[in-house]
Amino acid sequence: MTTASAAALAAADVVVGYRPYLELVADLLTGKRTVGSGMRQETARAKAAVAEAEAGSRVAVVSGGDAGVYGMAGLVLELLPEGSPVTVEVVPGVTAASAAAACLGAPLMNDFAVVSLSDLLTPLETIERRLRAAADGDFVLALYNPRSTRRHEPLRRALSILRERRAPGTPVGLVRNALRDGHEARITTLGDLHEDDVDMLSILIVGNRETVVRDGRIVTPRGYPT
Amino acid sequence: MTTASAAALAAADVVVGYRPYLELVADLLTGKRTVGSGMRQETARAKAAVAEAEAGSRVAVVSGGDAGVYGMAGLVLELLPEGSPVTVEVVPGVTAASAAAACLGAPLMNDFAVVSLSDLLTPLETIERRLRAAADGDFVLALYNPRSTRRHEPLRRALSILRERRAPGTPVGLVRNALRDGHEARITTLGDLHEDDVDMLSILIVGNRETVVRDGRIVTPRGYPT
Repeated sequence: MTTASAAALAAADVVVGYRPYLELVADLLTGKRTVGSGMRQETARAKAAVAEAEAGSRVAVVSGGDAGVYGMAGLVLELLPEGSPVTVEVVPGVTAASAAAACLGAPLMNDFAVVSLSDLLTPLETIERRLRAAADGDFVLALYNPRSTRRHEPLRRALSILRERRAPGTPVGLVRNALRDGHEARITTLGDLHEDDVDMLSILIVGNRETVVRDGRIVTPRGYPT
Repeated sequence: MTTASAAALAAADVVVGYRPYLELVADLLTGKRTVGSGMRQETARAKAAVAEAEAGSRVAVVSGGDAGVYGMAGLVLELLPEGSPVTVEVVPGVTAASAAAACLGAPLMNDFAVVSLSDLLTPLETIERRLRAAADGDFVLALYNPRSTRRHEPLRRALSILRERRAPGTPVGLVRNALRDGHEARITTLGDLHEDDVDMLSILIVGNRETVVRDGRIVTPRGYPT
């Protein structure tokens, strides 16, 4: 949590968010009205926030990680009527790629690409095209939403695309609950990663051609002469 | 600043960093020994931090944005002797892409790539290859270190590559001092961007094919039906 996020919460009359996220910040919500909702209710949540703000409340919308990266910021801005008198401030946060990288060492020290493997909102062909492009550009990759209980195919295809283009020994970091207490980090390789070890609370970081494992940590050299 | 970064500073005996960054956190440094250094002294700074830690001090290394993204984390881990008894904790932060995005609206709501245009440590050909790959993959792009007083060619080439591949009307956000008070954000287009408006304190965000400007803000739709 950043001090700016805490200040935004403190200034709000109404706090809107995914219910488990509201529970994570419960100690900052005393005396505030809360509007919690469940999974996949993003649109309804953003609409509720806009309606509360247009009715005159000071509203904070809680989002996991950075609200600006696959988070609630865009949806609120898309749903706000054009010319609305409501002002919106986007408070940036620590995105899951940064949090996961910190658990693993320093894999994002050079150019990287962030791709969500969820095909709920993006066609699988687009995801595959981006993975091919990122692999061809030798980007380090941070893969969000890699797998859920029902969604296995995108990760399978991602691994197939990456295994065609990168060496089996390429370091891969698997972090669960990256942004929360009790995170678990594991370092493996592109060749050894098992799909079944990946779930919806995971984020995957796949190294580029220069990424190494050193003393149990993944490091992508920035290129400084050492 | 995150609460975890503030806690790490509070716990340190010695704080090492780029001098202007130490000044930004001066109120958190009371009673601590500081080791400040200047631009391009990254290797010396990391070595000093490792030496202090190996001598038994609790050391915090200050980095701008997220220490794990083009920051000091990797260099410290590279320079720590293998098997050293010193433990290193990387504290993630808000990287400049997230901070700049928040100033502009919500341009990073879908897959994005982060590329540094500095050719001090990465050959220009590699930078160009990555820009082509990211453009071909229709990634939103966050461009770090886009230009300095002496380094003009990488931005020129980047714009040429992007202008060949994306429409002139593609939204571009230019943010100066993204992570600090007094940031300035400007929205323009790929066709209209003037190189001379970009300096070393800037970060550029270039939209993908779906990115729009709405009510003075850049938004990349995530794809939710609205």
